[in-house]
Amino acid sequence: MQLNVGCQILFESHDQTPVILMLRPRSGSGQWIMREEYQLSPHVPVVEYADGYGNLCQRITIPQGAFQVRTSAVVDAPDKIDVEPNAHFVPVPELPDSVLQFILPSRYCEADRLGDLALEIAGNANPGYEQVEAIRQWIQQNIEYAYGTSNASTSAVETADRRVGVCRDFTHLGIALCRSLNIPTRMVVGYLYELKPMDLHAWFEAYVGDRWYTFDATQEQPRGNRVTIAYGRDAADVALVTQFAAMDLVEMQVWVTPAG
Amino acid sequence: MQLNVGCQILFESHDQTPVILMLRPRSGSGQWIMREEYQLSPHVPVVEYADGYGNLCQRITIPQGAFQVRTSAVVDAPDKIDVEPNAHFVPVPELPDSVLQFILPSRYCEADRLGDLALEIAGNANPGYEQVEAIRQWIQQNIEYAYGTSNASTSAVETADRRVGVCRDFTHLGIALCRSLNIPTRMVVGYLYELKPMDLHAWFEAYVGDRWYTFDATQEQPRGNRVTIAYGRDAADVALVTQFAAMDLVEMQVWVTPAG
Amino acid sequence: MQLNVGCQILFESHDQTPVILMLRPRSGSGQWIMREEYQLSPHVPVVEYADGYGNLCQRITIPQGAFQVRTSAVVDAPDKIDVEPNAHFVPVPELPDSVLQFILPSRYCEADRLGDLALEIAGNANPGYEQVEAIRQWIQQNIEYAYGTSNASTSAVETADRRVGVCRDFTHLGIALCRSLNIPTRMVVGYLYELKPMDLHAWFEAYVGDRWYTFDATQEQPRGNRVTIAYGRDAADVALVTQFAAMDLVEMQVWVTPAG
Amino acid sequence: MQLNVGCQILFESHDQTPVILMLRPRSGSGQWIMREEYQLSPHVPVVEYADGYGNLCQRITIPQGAFQVRTSAVVDAPDKIDVEPNAHFVPVPELPDSVLQFILPSRYCEADRLGDLALEIAGNANPGYEQVEAIRQWIQQNIEYAYGTSNASTSAVETADRRVGVCRDFTHLGIALCRSLNIPTRMVVGYLYELKPMDLHAWFEAYVGDRWYTFDATQEQPRGNRVTIAYGRDAADVALVTQFAAMDLVEMQVWVTPAG
Repeated sequence: MQLNVGCQILFESHDQTPVILMLRPRSGSGQWIMREEYQLSPHVPVVEYADGYGNLCQRITIPQGAFQVRTSAVVDAPDKIDVEPNAHFVPVPELPDSVLQFILPSRYCEADRLGDLALEIAGNANPGYEQVEAIRQWIQQNIEYAYGTSNASTSAVETADRRVGVCRDFTHLGIALCRSLNIPTRMVVGYLYELKPMDLHAWFEAYVGDRWYTFDATQEQPRGNRVTIAYGRDAADVALVTQFAAMDLVEMQVWVTPAG
Repeated sequence: MQLNVGCQILFESHDQTPVILMLRPRSGSGQWIMREEYQLSPHVPVVEYADGYGNLCQRITIPQGAFQVRTSAVVDAPDKIDVEPNAHFVPVPELPDSVLQFILPSRYCEADRLGDLALEIAGNANPGYEQVEAIRQWIQQNIEYAYGTSNASTSAVETADRRVGVCRDFTHLGIALCRSLNIPTRMVVGYLYELKPMDLHAWFEAYVGDRWYTFDATQEQPRGNRVTIAYGRDAADVALVTQFAAMDLVEMQVWVTPAG
Repeated sequence: MQLNVGCQILFESHDQTPVILMLRPRSGSGQWIMREEYQLSPHVPVVEYADGYGNLCQRITIPQGAFQVRTSAVVDAPDKIDVEPNAHFVPVPELPDSVLQFILPSRYCEADRLGDLALEIAGNANPGYEQVEAIRQWIQQNIEYAYGTSNASTSAVETADRRVGVCRDFTHLGIALCRSLNIPTRMVVGYLYELKPMDLHAWFEAYVGDRWYTFDATQEQPRGNRVTIAYGRDAADVALVTQFAAMDLVEMQVWVTPAG
Repeated sequence: MQLNVGCQILFESHDQTPVILMLRPRSGSGQWIMREEYQLSPHVPVVEYADGYGNLCQRITIPQGAFQVRTSAVVDAPDKIDVEPNAHFVPVPELPDSVLQFILPSRYCEADRLGDLALEIAGNANPGYEQVEAIRQWIQQNIEYAYGTSNASTSAVETADRRVGVCRDFTHLGIALCRSLNIPTRMVVGYLYELKPMDLHAWFEAYVGDRWYTFDATQEQPRGNRVTIAYGRDAADVALVTQFAAMDLVEMQVWVTPAG
């Protein structure tokens, strides 16, 4: 389905603040960017580069005072995500070199500490897709979705303990549990059509069978119409805004509507 | 200056034709893409990837019949290019690893065969920027600009011999001559404001002092307001359209106008 | 000084165990590998690849039973490390793209949680090299070096709390503290001549002035004669042995002696 | 078979000469470096880096006078190369992104000029492996192997014309012909056991079915026991010695013998 997606963020900065933004979706094998717009008010010089995952990053210095970022795109995205219960577990020796990094623990996904919980949840499932799906369902049913219960330092171990969080926490927990079973798993940030309430969103992808599959522990059913902005190991890699000084995010609007 | 740039290409294909397009400019340190649009009619699936130089490439299969590609962008580009006669020659041992590939000969730039001509042209210039500028001026004054005199197989040695060609040939010759003096040089394709007649354009960049500088052998004076689409060793790397079967380019329009 | 370095590791595996080894040092700008040897007994097929940091990784499947890995090298390494108290802090907007990833928090280096401690330790030092040195000295003087006090899951926050650990913990804490000050910092694993007791070692590098400098919080004085095996964000990236099933490391010998 | 391979090169330089050497084989999926040695006499500082193809390159400045490079290795290499007449042609849209660069023409492989000859040779063969094999055989039977008939500037078009050359020319011609049929093809330089006369060698690999296969137009029969030093588009990429000033190669010895 063709989607209008976008966000508008208003910052208030007390001083010059270096920032890395990750707000420009790229065309890939799963989505096609038909139109795109990126506005900074006031306009400041930008350097854009691709990070190690291929995400486009915008380096700017936000001046003192009010500063607005507005990005929007018209994107052709798949209506459905692929669901493939038969996708088997890939033994580590057969994994492509490039996905090995996604089995390792990372800042917010302490896979090395969650092996017991993963076995408890998915120990009886068929190795591969069904294990990931068991983990996804367990999170969806056992973690309470609530704003203001976690922060930028909250990690998977803490979420497993407190059983509450937001999409970012659900995702970190799903990733950590899958990795503890040696399933490569990565974080995705982007837009989801009809997300309630509307916001920027996070979910995860697991490598089973011979490719990446999409999983979203915040949703009851598999849902398509997703627009990916960035991939990475966890939120340390794919923060939409990484700021290197104090600065307030005053207001943010996000929209995803049918195009045309 | 903020520029509206774009092109519209009409193909007529006798059969299904695999194609790689390179028609999406990227933001970088020198330019900022404020808005962008990319349309294929009829719409076909696209896979986009970044090549080894970071250029965004669109892989499609053009169906039988008429097919139109239309891309446009609003770009903030520098009004002027930097001119720095004091930028010195960088001895090979001090060059960054990443630019070494741009000293080597390539398909259309037989640097290994043009050393004598390069010395004749630039032998008395100060090593570095001034050598490149001497080469650029020599080409501008000694090669005749004429359409229909060269083709997709024409290389620098042939252009040096025939003394006639188009922007692509001027660029290949400039690159080959500079490389024969061990100056890293790369090809750029993109848009130039007020180019006459308007078309997609090619020029080159040479690494002297401690950075890349822009040179255009088709122009008398240094001119800014350029929008880069892609970088590479020569036209083999940065063809805007690489087609893998017979297909006709029926019509092409290119525009560069002031924005806003 | 030319050094003979090497290690011999004996594993005992109850089952086939997939493993990634990182035990082959590479020549770089700071060291030159004159001779090298890598033996697996019994011999098994190996696939070697370079990870995202350029480290050479060996993928093997260790068979059931006893298995020995023996690697050695003759390396020309600098006698001294550079000490440059005047190397200044590089503001984030001026950092090269490629080092930005080393400011972010990672699995064992929760920079986002150690900002207060970093300011307490280094708040009065000149920004840059002197801050890093203040952190290094503080760790050297305040953290007790003791085997068996930490494990593969111990992170910088825990080490800051318990004030005890081994070279890996000292390094993680140094990295996390520096990153919380927006100084890019990376982990190094390798060999150090006259380390007591002899073992594989870990230290860190910080990017100040315009390059990486070496720091070792386990040592009182700056010491050279180091051989780097791998670089990364923390121990998740640069584990010398990453194993994907239970397996015992029965015995390990490490040697570093003058060559020739 | 386990092989001792190596070469010893004596240069005589009239002045300081910057050089890039490519003489350190790497372990990969097809070969395993068990031992390796690299000596420069007199010893000079070296910077080693990996180029865009993953080849290890050694940057040095050769001082005035006599200079010797000696590299050797003990390598475990496959006894046979895979021969798979059923490996089919891969249509361009299905090729992995990473191999697309190997369909493009390059300095010494003017694929864009050899389409007619390729069709003449391989037009009746089954698309894929059999086309490549038809080309390989045609070269083996129609090009005369003779030293001193070509030089560092000789390209595939010239070899097709003159019908004489050495392994490098045979390889360039094979690559250019295959690419003109849209088959990705790359150059390999390395060692071949029992090559007569013994020398450093060049051959090519073509991507058919779903992987790279080895072809050698200088040999009558498929032969294994090859050690790869470097891969690239053609000899511009994989020169074992790239020199940036005049310098004489006085003497070279190459050896490949059974190990152990």
